[in-house]
Amino acid sequence: MQGQTKTTLMSGMRPTGELHLGNYLGALENWVQLQNEYYCYFSIVDWHALTTAYKETDKLEERIFDMACDWLAAGLDPDKCAIFRQSHIKEIAELHLLFSMVIPLSWLERVPTYKDQLQQLKEKEINTYGFLGYPLLQAADILICQAEVIPVGEDQVPHIELTREVGRRFNHLYNTEVFNDPIAKLTENKVLPGLDNRKMSKSYNNYIRLTASPDEVIQKVRSMVTDPNRVRKNDPGNPDVCSAYAYHKIFNASNAVETEQSCKQGSIGCMDCKKALAIQLTELIQPIYEKKQELKNNPDYVYDVLADGAEKTRIVANETMEKVRKIMGI
Amino acid sequence: MQGQTKTTLMSGMRPTGELHLGNYLGALENWVQLQNEYYCYFSIVDWHALTTAYKETDKLEERIFDMACDWLAAGLDPDKCAIFRQSHIKEIAELHLLFSMVIPLSWLERVPTYKDQLQQLKEKEINTYGFLGYPLLQAADILICQAEVIPVGEDQVPHIELTREVGRRFNHLYNTEVFNDPIAKLTENKVLPGLDNRKMSKSYNNYIRLTASPDEVIQKVRSMVTDPNRVRKNDPGNPDVCSAYAYHKIFNASNAVETEQSCKQGSIGCMDCKKALAIQLTELIQPIYEKKQELKNNPDYVYDVLADGAEKTRIVANETMEKVRKIMGI
Ligand code: SF4
Ligand code: SF4
Repeated sequence: MQGQTKTTLMSGMRPTGELHLGNYLGALENWVQLQNEYYCYFSIVDWHALTTAYKETDKLEERIFDMACDWLAAGLDPDKCAIFRQSHIKEIAELHLLFSMVIPLSWLERVPTYKDQLQQLKEKEINTYGFLGYPLLQAADILICQAEVIPVGEDQVPHIELTREVGRRFNHLYNTEVFNDPIAKLTENKVLPGLDNRKMSKSYNNYIRLTASPDEVIQKVRSMVTDPNRVRKNDPGNPDVCSAYAYHKIFNASNAVETEQSCKQGSIGCMDCKKALAIQLTELIQPIYEKKQELKNNPDYVYDVLADGAEKTRIVANETMEKVRKIMGI
Repeated sequence: MQGQTKTTLMSGMRPTGELHLGNYLGALENWVQLQNEYYCYFSIVDWHALTTAYKETDKLEERIFDMACDWLAAGLDPDKCAIFRQSHIKEIAELHLLFSMVIPLSWLERVPTYKDQLQQLKEKEINTYGFLGYPLLQAADILICQAEVIPVGEDQVPHIELTREVGRRFNHLYNTEVFNDPIAKLTENKVLPGLDNRKMSKSYNNYIRLTASPDEVIQKVRSMVTDPNRVRKNDPGNPDVCSAYAYHKIFNASNAVETEQSCKQGSIGCMDCKKALAIQLTELIQPIYEKKQELKNNPDYVYDVLADGAEKTRIVANETMEKVRKIMGI
């Protein structure tokens, strides 16, 4: 990024629509901190969404809007970072195409997640050319922004390693240093279970929306699965099998030890225990909820943020592509 | 193409640099005719060139310029057609990316030429992601122009069939009719041997440049391999094993029967026979040679033609992409 001296960071999310607390903990909470330290490019990667959901694109526009709102509501500040939609930066498609010409097929075939995902998502018919090439599109996302740091979870490390290899191969082939070596910055792995103790998932409907209303928070907390062996209010409980306790540990951390003891001693009822949790969650969520309402009533502002973010990103993308085209003689 | 009622035709050539008579007969001669009947998009497909020559791009710019000159010198008329450079139309990279998301990998793996070429060009390390995807890039080239007719040789028919399947699959998935079914128009297969009777090839240096000077034509014709059993001037010859005769049949067709007879009877010497051929070839080539000299001295004009052609192509490409993006919700 021109005219700024901060280290550059890039990350993205697939537009799955409204975020839940799991998404928040896994990435967004972190981003809100990172934007103060780094110059950040945050991308709603809509082309990536097509790799697994090319058949269901009718809700894409709505999901993109919702995701942009949630990012802003949670505290991303368009003055500190570029918030944009991947498909607004056509140069990414161009760089992806150019990378495709120089990257061995085998590099993509051996990406660890590739065969796993093919198996897992069998019924979705995702065995497409683009699904195989998705790590290359990710490499283009990252390298076009000249990003130096990529915040990732453990499972994404092989993809970042591929990105680095792509950049290095290009540099080596054309005897250049146009691409830097981005570094994976591991994000702390805070795993939040679903309200029913299963894995949190949109399809199980076992989550709390990041922008839930206060009523919704109370209702959702009420539905949390607790220790099934606690029949009476003063039975001693086992917090380790209780989803409410898992949330206490994260969202009511300063009282977690006390909660654990009270539960084990049977000195607190589940209703009260949940009430305390709901209060803490509401404290976090209510401002986000309110901000979201505001944004939803002002869609023009949200679209302006995306247009603005695209413009900022296009500056660095063009800068990169001008060099790349010259280097390749194309 | 807006505002025109002619049927639309699209074709392209890889920028291999200066053309030879084989290239002229195989495609360009045909194009010069077709531009009167169809509205034509003629593309110098520089991205395609990378699929097999990503390591040798230093001459690409020069080759593209040379090819554009040769096209114009041979009679392509920028007022009748759009002459452009593929990489100037970024929308093609975008459409290629979108196609990649919906097209099964297996469709590309089973393209007949794929495994053959991998084998043939083994030493070039072309086993890249982009080499596999090249028929999809071709589909984007064709479908983005809304081309109705594609002039091809027999060997290219499977690629056009794939293009049709890509368009149909897209139409079917999104319940639309945005892509039409382009038709392959088989071009007559006039095969010209090399001067040494081997396959004509740049690497054998056994060809005549389409823009050769009159001197060069004479010298090249002189080097043609004739019937090796003709030792004396009036030995009876066998024109079927003589490369000069192969050229007579095509470039001096009205006298071919006479030439054949004179050769068989030993009533004409090879020197005179070749002289007659050189005269015919010069008649074809000299105006092209002269026009090329003119164009080489006026590179700005050539670049203007390419810029102009890109602008015309961008109109239809944008029109197509606006529809495609809307249909896919992206
Ligand atoms: S008291 Fe709290 S931690 Fe213990 S089982 Fe009930 S809700 Fe869970
Ligand atoms: S006379 Fe003509 S056709 Fe016969 S061998 Fe000589 S060059 Fe060839």
